[in-house]
Amino acid sequence: MGIQVTVDLVIFSVQESALKVWLVKRDNRPFKGHLAIPERVINKNESLDQAALRELKEETRARQVYLEQLYSFGDRKRDPRGRVVTVAYYALLPGDQAKRVSPNGSGAAWRSVDALPPLVFDQKRIVNYAVERLRTKLEYTTAGFQLLPRKFTLSELQAVYETILGKKLDKRNFRKKMDLLGVLKPLREWRRTGRKPARLYMFKGKKFERLKDKGILFPF
Amino acid sequence: MGIQVTVDLVIFSVQESALKVWLVKRDNRPFKGHLAIPERVINKNESLDQAALRELKEETRARQVYLEQLYSFGDRKRDPRGRVVTVAYYALLPGDQAKRVSPNGSGAAWRSVDALPPLVFDQKRIVNYAVERLRTKLEYTTAGFQLLPRKFTLSELQAVYETILGKKLDKRNFRKKMDLLGVLKPLREWRRTGRKPARLYMFKGKKFERLKDKGILFPF
Repeated sequence: MGIQVTVDLVIFSVQESALKVWLVKRDNRPFKGHLAIPERVINKNESLDQAALRELKEETRARQVYLEQLYSFGDRKRDPRGRVVTVAYYALLPGDQAKRVSPNGSGAAWRSVDALPPLVFDQKRIVNYAVERLRTKLEYTTAGFQLLPRKFTLSELQAVYETILGKKLDKRNFRKKMDLLGVLKPLREWRRTGRKPARLYMFKGKKFERLKDKGILFPF
Repeated sequence: MGIQVTVDLVIFSVQESALKVWLVKRDNRPFKGHLAIPERVINKNESLDQAALRELKEETRARQVYLEQLYSFGDRKRDPRGRVVTVAYYALLPGDQAKRVSPNGSGAAWRSVDALPPLVFDQKRIVNYAVERLRTKLEYTTAGFQLLPRKFTLSELQAVYETILGKKLDKRNFRKKMDLLGVLKPLREWRRTGRKPARLYMFKGKKFERLKDKGILFPF
């Protein structure tokens, strides 16, 4: 048999102050019943992107999810089935959509990247690679925003950044940077959370894209 | 037949103030005799990285070349032979080494990315993607340095940046930024080029790596 090509999918979300990954229980050999990130053998009639999108849709039923090709893994002995090259993708699912992705009794679940169970093949390496990419991307792209619902408070925004970077950020400093970038659109809506209502914001996508093109960094 | 996996290689160098790519004349079908970037069908006993390295070595015989996986391309109809997924890599070859890579009468040549001939398959897209990646990388990595010989003048350094970015940079500004980063090690050697001898520099690799980890951007 020749070389098989698969697509592996690292689906991220931020929930309860943790960066989480969607794991499923494998229903095929090898490692049937073990936890894994979703995987799919691509068929001859779909492109890599199409295969990743279909897998993502099957798992999440979500619309408008950020999806990006991550890296291809092709070590000789990564898969006991034979020679399998996998093209890994990662997706960012806003927290409110992620809550609706339910295990359906299949044993699938959101698991924190800080406490991952053993995964099959070289999938731990793939997930780690995706976490690394996400952290880097946070500094010069809109990646952080993709994990938020459409409307969010500044505290929620900061919490997403803190969760992914794994460290506390100074609140005043964080807000000053966001102000400087001018990517947030304040709404005439407030949400009652703690003692006082918090203003809701939306994100000016085009403005951020323009900033990005100019090579502005976003370091925390 | 199933899906085939190939490795495509975009080999860059900067020569005569132009960003160049190494093109070969295909000696196999399809498109025999046409210009193409080097391509190799991976065999079952080599990893993706090994396949890319072997192809690179065959083409350049160079040691110590920067090599990085770029992206995987797998549209359904990209290759008339059938379903072929290619994992593209790009390599950066210092100018002095590039001059030694000779066509050997095979029709291979360094061609400027600004004046590429038609390429086979979707290779034009692959080359464009690599140029884009290289430009972006210039801003936050040591990519630019990989195209220089071990010892270089500040003018040569600036010329590499200008060539890849496709625009003139202010000399004083450029040198100030390099000073600020502190990644250059001045040598007690000079090279006679124009009217007066120009000092030679080497590059402090570790220092730059540390800076990079802190998320320092390098925008021009």
